[in-house]
Amino acid sequence: MTGQRSAPEAGPPEPPLAPGTRRPGGRTARTRAAVRDAVLTGLAEHGYPGLTVEYVAEHSGIHKTTLYRRWGNLEGLVADALELAGEDSWAPPDTGSVEGDLRALARMTAASFEDPTAAAAPTAFIAAAFQSERAAKALNAFYTERFARCEVVVARAVARHELDRRTDAGALVRAVVSPLFLGLFITRESVDGASADRSADAALAAARAGVFNSPAESA
Amino acid sequence: MTGQRSAPEAGPPEPPLAPGTRRPGGRTARTRAAVRDAVLTGLAEHGYPGLTVEYVAEHSGIHKTTLYRRWGNLEGLVADALELAGEDSWAPPDTGSVEGDLRALARMTAASFEDPTAAAAPTAFIAAAFQSERAAKALNAFYTERFARCEVVVARAVARHELDRRTDAGALVRAVVSPLFLGLFITRESVDGASADRSADAALAAARAGVFNSPAESA
Repeated sequence: MTGQRSAPEAGPPEPPLAPGTRRPGGRTARTRAAVRDAVLTGLAEHGYPGLTVEYVAEHSGIHKTTLYRRWGNLEGLVADALELAGEDSWAPPDTGSVEGDLRALARMTAASFEDPTAAAAPTAFIAAAFQSERAAKALNAFYTERFARCEVVVARAVARHELDRRTDAGALVRAVVSPLFLGLFITRESVDGASADRSADAALAAARAGVFNSPAESA
Repeated sequence: MTGQRSAPEAGPPEPPLAPGTRRPGGRTARTRAAVRDAVLTGLAEHGYPGLTVEYVAEHSGIHKTTLYRRWGNLEGLVADALELAGEDSWAPPDTGSVEGDLRALARMTAASFEDPTAAAAPTAFIAAAFQSERAAKALNAFYTERFARCEVVVARAVARHELDRRTDAGALVRAVVSPLFLGLFITRESVDGASADRSADAALAAARAGVFNSPAESA
């Protein structure tokens, strides 16, 4: 259907990926993006419990045997889609003040789950992690990297003398968004701009009180 | 199999529950508890996607037709099990200081998800809410009531002059536990006693800075 059957000895249809031969935007990247899009659409439509390799094959135009060969199984497809989702150029807001940056970060988080259509796939990733160990690991890697990107907010605040240089940036940015995730995915309470601002302000107050100061550096 | 077939006109086998006729600990309560236990066991073993009414019937000893008649469907069974789980006498810790109470609350929350066996059913409830609107509503009701029980911690702190009387108790207790839920169920990072203490201390610092003061009462 997609020409995979003509590949020699059922090997990969694309040139093997070896150091120096990677072609960003090439056929391999396009295939991966098509598969990722099909996974996202499927997760949004059916959630993880309803997603199948057959669905991904049908919606990506990539033959099922190719999907199994390259991604192993459904868990592998979901984990790779999440990994690809993390390969973007997103950067945290830069408003000129730590209060503004943290509030913008909190509001951005709340807003990203406000529109049900836009929220469907990320929500499905979070749900998938309850059923798939590989999805849980991919989600952990995604958020670890995402929070690491946010640490620049704290570095700028330290440079502006708004925060103590011992501030644990990771703990602070997690504190900013955690009440929003609690409301969205655990207690199922509504979140809005006001609750986002309050989350940010609370985390900042705690940081200013020294609660997030790293004990290692404060010694 | 359980004698339900002899009930007249397929009506409920127990005396109808009408005001004044409720018998706590009676047959109705025992039936409900048996069904709840089967739901919890099934959720722990298979998760919500793998749970079936057949499983609940088999493990509770209650006939499937009775389950459908009284609980409607699987969603109704899960929602009722969660409702019953909320009908306990749990009270938040009372250590003599707001710092101690909030740290104990945070540590209790972290510990309740530490043992995989004990955590399986509550985790499955949280997961079920991603797939079932009724489970989501039941989870919301459960946590709303649970957090309301925690408000006494703040009332005691206000009486001891540890916190401003305008403190929004609900916002404070949610802030205490939210970083733990984020780590446990979203970012899949480990939580421990130290992170529990830090969550509690951060929320308390924010409360002391006035971030959780109710705007209505502060006017």
